[in-house]
Formats: sequence, C-alpha cells, structure tokens
Amino acid sequence: MPPNPERRSERARVAILEAALALCQEHGYPATTMEAIAKRAGVGKQTIYRWWPSKAAVLQEAVNENVGAATDFPDTGDIVADLRSQMAMVVGLLTSETLSPYTRGLIVAAQSDSDIARSLVANIIEPRTRACRERLEIAVKQGQLRDDVDLNDVVELLYAPLYYRMLLHTRPLTAQQVDHILDLAFTGLAPSVGKPVRARRHAGRTTK
Amino acid sequence: MPPNPERRSERARVAILEAALALCQEHGYPATTMEAIAKRAGVGKQTIYRWWPSKAAVLQEAVNENVGAATDFPDTGDIVADLRSQMAMVVGLLTSETLSPYTRGLIVAAQSDSDIARSLVANIIEPRTRACRERLEIAVKQGQLRDDVDLNDVVELLYAPLYYRMLLHTRPLTAQQVDHILDLAFTGLAPSVGKPVRARRHAGRTTK
Repeated sequence: MPPNPERRSERARVAILEAALALCQEHGYPATTMEAIAKRAGVGKQTIYRWWPSKAAVLQEAVNENVGAATDFPDTGDIVADLRSQMAMVVGLLTSETLSPYTRGLIVAAQSDSDIARSLVANIIEPRTRACRERLEIAVKQGQLRDDVDLNDVVELLYAPLYYRMLLHTRPLTAQQVDHILDLAFTGLAPSVGKPVRARRHAGRTTK
Repeated sequence: MPPNPERRSERARVAILEAALALCQEHGYPATTMEAIAKRAGVGKQTIYRWWPSKAAVLQEAVNENVGAATDFPDTGDIVADLRSQMAMVVGLLTSETLSPYTRGLIVAAQSDSDIARSLVANIIEPRTRACRERLEIAVKQGQLRDDVDLNDVVELLYAPLYYRMLLHTRPLTAQQVDHILDLAFTGLAPSVGKPVRARRHAGRTTK
C-alpha cells in the first residue's frame, strides 16, 4: 500500500513545529533559522517555505498549537475567579521554559520588524484579547463589572503588569501577582470610607 | 594658557553622549557600537572605555541626562492630577523620536543579556519607581489613596499599560490612554451602586 500523503504531511508539519520550539528553547530566537528547523525536522527547507512564509509564522503556529485551550476563557459565573484562573495560566505560559523563549524572541523581533509586529498582534494577542473581552461583556451584563468602560482598556490594565515584569525584569512573575492585580483593579485605588468597596463587589454580583 | 583638562573632558563626555543617542536614533541600538560612538564623537575608543564599561552604560547616562527633570514627580497636592501630568510626560518620552529607539533597544538587549537587564532596572526603572512610590506615600498619608496596598504594585498597574502598547504594538500610545488608566485604576472595575465612586475619590481628598 502506498503511504498516505496526507498523513505524511501531517507528520512533517508536527516535526517542523516541534523542531522550531526546541531550537528556540535551546539556542534562542535569533539562532532559530529556517535552515536549522529544516535540518532538525529532517525535511527540506523548501517544504517549510511551502507552508509558512517565515520562521515567525512557524513559531506562531507552534506556540498557538501548544498553548491551545490553555488560554480559552472559563465561565463559572464569577468574573474575578475566572480572570484569576486564566491569568494564572498566562503567568504559567510566560514563565514556561518551553514557550517563554519563543514569546520573548517574538516580542524582541517585533521591535525592529513591523511585519512580525503586525502578525504578533493579529495571531497571538488579538484573538486572546477578544476572548477576554467577550467574557468581560458577559460580566458587564451580569452586573459584575462597570458598564461605562472600554473593555480593551480593561484587558490592558489586567494583563500589562504581567508583560511588564517579564520584559523589564523588575520582579519575578508569580501567581500571587495576579491576586494583587485583581484586588487593585476591581477595588480601585481610591480610599474607601469605612471600606465598603470589597463588600460592594459581592453586592454587585448578587443584586443584579 | 594651557587648556583646562577638566573642561576638555566635560566637552568629550557631552560629545560621546550626543553621538551615542544620535547613532541609536539613526541606525538603531544594535548598530550603535563603541567604535561608531568614538568615531562620531571624535575621540579614541579607549577614552570611552575609561569612563563607561559598555555602550549600554553610555546610553543609560545619555538618556538619564536628557530625560533629567522630566520624570521628577510633581506634588501639587492632588495625586490624580500629578500622576496624569507625570504619566503624560512618560508617554512623551516613550514616543519621542530621539529617546524611544534607545529605550526600545535597551529593553530588547535586556532580554538576552542579564547585565543589561540588571542595569536597566537599577539605573532607569528603579530610581523612577522610587520617586513615584514616594509621591504615592504622601497621597496615602493625605487620604487620597488606599493605605492597604503595595505601592510597587500600584506603580506597575499604572505604568505597565504604557509599556504594553509600546512593546506589543497593539494600539498607539497617547495621552488619552493616561486618562483611561487613571479612571479605571482609581475608580476600580467593580460596578458601583448609584455610582458613588468618583465622588468618593474627591471626598477622600477633602475630608482628610
């Protein structure tokens, strides 16, 4: 029986994605060339170029496939609890030995290559921002979140501190940071008279 | 009269700092080598190495000198107004044609060089974080800010969204973004019952 070409391509595709991630982890993003990926995956360079225009495209598909459902948005009915568990997963990904060299490398490359910057936003950032926004919209309808704010700004306020620590190296990224961000962001920085603010958050959840 | 060696050094120092910034602006951080800085400043490479250990050190001094008082923290007695004007200045610096290529280049270099990462935090980030923290401490004492939070977390919450846009290229950095961040952060994301939150911020300011 002749080999199934469909299956053979899928095997090559997986080998290429695994080779790209492994090289990025071992040698860093700049050293992860198309040549090196082809060699490690045991395929010709032309095979890779037939499916992907650049190494950034290969790595984006690899990371999207590996991250997979890990960044899907939970909906247990409690927006703070759902953000907490989803943001903790993002902390896990941004500190993962396998995936963080790639994420870091891609952000670095985006600073001097506007094609990579656009594709980073379109393929990695925006789909996840949209998923978060959709979950926040439900929370607004359920009275768990202010209804007078731009939800893109909310996503930035919550997630930017994670990238800040990762990229500026000020303090280690931890799951505890997520608790602090959520407390500050939901309760707000203004002083509360008689501290009714935390209570109000729960009131908002049950009274609407 | 022989030339004053003190004055001659100061002239060379200024020429070196200006050459470093100009090269970074014109050709980017990676192309700004010690050789190129020396050539442009009209000094020997050894003169630069006598005063600075690396190009990162030269550029940090250059940027610190150019930024100068622009990141000092105002104290008009109103923490939200002071944050607004100071953060708007930071937006100006992060989008400045002269200084942003350097800032971006230094952050890029920090991703693969832990010495640069440490010096970025020690010489650029931490002194400014400290100045902000000191201003926030005054605001806590004056009842304009919650007294139960880690002020480093507050600094991150407010400033991280600026770096997020700069480095992830999601949306342009604007002064308007500062207003949105301050509104979200001070008022909080929790829904308000009868919207007393904005009023409470001002109440906090006048009643303590």
